[in-house]
Amino acid sequence: MDRDTYDKGMKIRRETLGDAYVDKAMAGVDDFTRELQEMVTTYCWGEVWGREGLDRRTRSIINIAMISILNRQTELGAHVRGALNNGVTRDEIKEVLLQVGIYGGVPAMVDSFRTAKAVLADIDGEGE
Amino acid sequence: MDRDTYDKGMKIRRETLGDAYVDKAMAGVDDFTRELQEMVTTYCWGEVWGREGLDRRTRSIINIAMISILNRQTELGAHVRGALNNGVTRDEIKEVLLQVGIYGGVPAMVDSFRTAKAVLADIDGEGE
Amino acid sequence: MDRDTYDKGMKIRRETLGDAYVDKAMAGVDDFTRELQEMVTTYCWGEVWGREGLDRRTRSIINIAMISILNRQTELGAHVRGALNNGVTRDEIKEVLLQVGIYGGVPAMVDSFRTAKAVLADIDGEGE
Amino acid sequence: MDRDTYDKGMKIRRETLGDAYVDKAMAGVDDFTRELQEMVTTYCWGEVWGREGLDRRTRSIINIAMISILNRQTELGAHVRGALNNGVTRDEIKEVLLQVGIYGGVPAMVDSFRTAKAVLADIDGEGE
Amino acid sequence: MDRDTYDKGMKIRRETLGDAYVDKAMAGVDDFTRELQEMVTTYCWGEVWGREGLDRRTRSIINIAMISILNRQTELGAHVRGALNNGVTRDEIKEVLLQVGIYGGVPAMVDSFRTAKAVLADIDGEGE
Amino acid sequence: MDRDTYDKGMKIRRETLGDAYVDKAMAGVDDFTRELQEMVTTYCWGEVWGREGLDRRTRSIINIAMISILNRQTELGAHVRGALNNGVTRDEIKEVLLQVGIYGGVPAMVDSFRTAKAVLADIDGEGE
Repeated sequence: MDRDTYDKGMKIRRETLGDAYVDKAMAGVDDFTRELQEMVTTYCWGEVWGREGLDRRTRSIINIAMISILNRQTELGAHVRGALNNGVTRDEIKEVLLQVGIYGGVPAMVDSFRTAKAVLADIDGEGE
Repeated sequence: MDRDTYDKGMKIRRETLGDAYVDKAMAGVDDFTRELQEMVTTYCWGEVWGREGLDRRTRSIINIAMISILNRQTELGAHVRGALNNGVTRDEIKEVLLQVGIYGGVPAMVDSFRTAKAVLADIDGEGE
Repeated sequence: MDRDTYDKGMKIRRETLGDAYVDKAMAGVDDFTRELQEMVTTYCWGEVWGREGLDRRTRSIINIAMISILNRQTELGAHVRGALNNGVTRDEIKEVLLQVGIYGGVPAMVDSFRTAKAVLADIDGEGE
Repeated sequence: MDRDTYDKGMKIRRETLGDAYVDKAMAGVDDFTRELQEMVTTYCWGEVWGREGLDRRTRSIINIAMISILNRQTELGAHVRGALNNGVTRDEIKEVLLQVGIYGGVPAMVDSFRTAKAVLADIDGEGE
Repeated sequence: MDRDTYDKGMKIRRETLGDAYVDKAMAGVDDFTRELQEMVTTYCWGEVWGREGLDRRTRSIINIAMISILNRQTELGAHVRGALNNGVTRDEIKEVLLQVGIYGGVPAMVDSFRTAKAVLADIDGEGE
Repeated sequence: MDRDTYDKGMKIRRETLGDAYVDKAMAGVDDFTRELQEMVTTYCWGEVWGREGLDRRTRSIINIAMISILNRQTELGAHVRGALNNGVTRDEIKEVLLQVGIYGGVPAMVDSFRTAKAVLADIDGEGE
């Protein structure tokens, strides 16, 4: 792994998903998951999120769409939160998920709205 | 079907995919495919693409990502062309597909680049 | 959205999934999920379930098969209940899921039987 | 493999997909594909299609829905032809594919209509 | 169902997934799930796992990869345990899941590591 | 990108897929596909295939299984050839694909056998 790319990736990962989320992921690192964390940070967050060609708002929007289609609810929840951190509005998340419904089908849309709504409720609860 | 939504959808569909593409789709309409065309035009293009909440550039970017994950190469080709019509650049399409590789895996990325590259070659050939 | 199609869809949706289920879905409607509910009711339940060409029993059978393949367990549970409401028998649900196993693979079959069995147990418990 | 189940399966397979199709599949059998053909005939056609609990029309309808979602166009083509052999009408195939569009998304619907339409054109051409 | 194949399958199933797991599955058998259990045991464990051409270690490795891609977490957990019973090491499971990340994407990898880690923690707890 | 990992990846990629295949891929590189090739070579072939924990035979077997499930026929063809280069036998490829049939369903198995058989026929033809 290239150290500079790892460091760049860790910075973007923390800015997107939040320190609380990343601290928790890193605290659980052991021999079984060490390379997982390195690969995600370097390859996903450093190499691709670190590229100039699209802003983070757009990358977050793309992720919500793709991860909805992929049916990965835990990851979707993290990226809904990340999208808000990157400046995507709640209305824009709604628009993405309605478009998911057309291209990925109604069950994908319904599941993704359920996950997103739970994240929004958590965030609203944290503010109280 | 609501006629106004159909008409709005047909306009957006033509502006995105091009008259040549839509004329060809509509010319083949028969009893077997009539409702298919009506449903796609009304719900997909009228109800969702016709909404205000995201601009067409962003909707095209989302579609390239989703349809890559869904592994539907013919539709992907049409939406690569549509993305260019909607103002997405070739470099931005490349960025979306690199991000597809991270979240949807290398075979999805390789197939989508192959499809996109063929569309770009067609377009360049048309200009000659 | 076309109001007549929405109303027709809401009627079919309630007859299939049950008032309790739909009331709960509609009670949670807010700015984030309003269009979701409208789109599902109009497009899914009004436009397609409202068509004449297949009876509701057959549409329920198709849904159990498709949603099993799509791996959407919450939706599958709702449609197992809906299938029973539409006159599909428990033995027929079993047959559909065995066929899912052949075409969609053993893990899809096992997961779908697990979900369906839990729904049947709930229904049996409600009758007590 | 159980010989009786194999024989039962071969009979149903031939009645559904047609002798021409099955003869071609069996003619190509070699050491690489022998078990493939045995497994498909015995488990898929003998064990599951050979069960009493659903009639063949319904099993064909389910298959068109599932294989559309699974995005396997060659198999879909064979089962569109099989559905017609089993008494499913062209209008019913259309209804199944419209329902695929709602639950599996527009690209799945469009691809499946394209495949089905090509099969119908072939059949119409054969009659000439 | 062929009785010999069923018996052979049941033996391999028990040796792989463990008696506790299989006893629990079989104890829940009723009219709804009887054929499910027979089909899984005969077809999956007898016909395919019972073949000579690959050793059980390799079959377990393949299953972890496939079931990760298929996004079936409950089945994945059972097969992580089965892999260990069949002699696959924890380090080898890690390697398979890193390869899943490249070909199936980061969300598939992250989910599968989460499931596998929970199984390993359970096993370590059982030993206390 | 880390140059050493790229070089290591290119070596493994060439040894697995063959110089003819890789030369063709690299000859087509332009501004649109440059990063695609770099990312595939570095992360896929360098970072993951370059790891010690599994031998190449096993990695090839895993890939055939995963790419069959993912329904990416062009990539599957390349990796069937790669598997043979890495010492996997034709009989072992058959075993993997039969196991794909159980877990991923019959259409996945049938498509993958079709692709693999075409690759084997090509190879046999090249030897003439």
